Amino acid sequence: MTRGRFIAFEGGEGVGKSTQARLLADALRERGLRVAVTREPGGTSGAEAIRKLLLAPPGEGWGPRAEALLFAAARSDHVSRLIRPALDGGEWVVCDRFLDSSRAYQGVALDLGDEAIMDLHRIGSEELLPDLVLVLQASPEQVARRLNARDGNASDAIGGRDATYHAKVDAAFAGFAQSDPGRYALIDGTGTIEQVHARVMHAVTPLLQRSERC
Amino acid sequence: MTRGRFIAFEGGEGVGKSTQARLLADALRERGLRVAVTREPGGTSGAEAIRKLLLAPPGEGWGPRAEALLFAAARSDHVSRLIRPALDGGEWVVCDRFLDSSRAYQGVALDLGDEAIMDLHRIGSEELLPDLVLVLQASPEQVARRLNARDGNASDAIGGRDATYHAKVDAAFAGFAQSDPGRYALIDGTGTIEQVHARVMHAVTPLLQRSERC
Repeated sequence: MTRGRFIAFEGGEGVGKSTQARLLADALRERGLRVAVTREPGGTSGAEAIRKLLLAPPGEGWGPRAEALLFAAARSDHVSRLIRPALDGGEWVVCDRFLDSSRAYQGVALDLGDEAIMDLHRIGSEELLPDLVLVLQASPEQVARRLNARDGNASDAIGGRDATYHAKVDAAFAGFAQSDPGRYALIDGTGTIEQVHARVMHAVTPLLQRSERC
Repeated sequence: MTRGRFIAFEGGEGVGKSTQARLLADALRERGLRVAVTREPGGTSGAEAIRKLLLAPPGEGWGPRAEALLFAAARSDHVSRLIRPALDGGEWVVCDRFLDSSRAYQGVALDLGDEAIMDLHRIGSEELLPDLVLVLQASPEQVARRLNARDGNASDAIGGRDATYHAKVDAAFAGFAQSDPGRYALIDGTGTIEQVHARVMHAVTPLLQRSERC
């Protein structure tokens, strides 16, 4: 059996990652592929329990170090219980956020450094990387509009941090994409949902062609 | 102000660590010291929430990697919110389990290796080490008797593992002590509570004398 492909959506808050992940999964299924759609932090019962601790911390809130460890713990459960078994069984996996969110949020914006985040990923998930990372980019105005339209979701412990923090995160994602263009695609997230979806499909086409050749 | 001292109790299940930690704290207080008694996993509201996830895992139970990350996350919160502030404020800290439990349980018995555990400790807690580690040792018969006498506590996700696992853990603690005799004391945990306490006080005396000279 051919191993499935692993595609992650990354980007700041409110850029449309979860909508585009669902649309991509539907399009892949129409081509006859089996697809698991999942998200981080979460995706398994263990990781969803950790997600609750992350978004509504007990006590005074997590420090950057504890936060990075909790994200890595949730990812470890998600990778070992869901992502790896799905890929090994020939399923494609489309994930709303993955490792690069930890690199951007805890590594860059909270200053823990990329080496620490990659060490945690080695220990927790044996360095599993997506075959393709789609970084969705939106204008600050568009992001503000989307966040305001959500009910309450923007006020969790991480989404509720300030604009400077989120600007650092956006710049970090763009930097990762530029440093490894073969594995990343920067997607313009402005315009209608259908326009963005068309850009996503364009970016995914080479991966589809490579697997059809296998 | 003189920095406080940090003493950890380590050893397998049911060797009397929490009882001896309380007795040691009382004895230190009688000498006029301020003492915080705490435990791992736990000690802060964040770490106690992680403790619940560790001892009663949602879903299929944690894999060794996720488990090690969760222990390191709990320790990170405990060190940054309780242990370091207490030591910096001149308090002594007596802790029931610390880093060596992760080294013995996840590093040795679950085969993650010592380097991974020490990497997590560097990232999570900036490598804080106890000034003195007291490793309590008991005969297998004594341990079985004590575990049977507890109500239900032995059946959590970690205490409930098999005898081979616990034998590996005991051997690991003894190994750590032998490799760094200046910072460890092996304490014979057989006999009455008072006899063991006398051995603990004997092991702690050099630390008390050093701080009285400061």
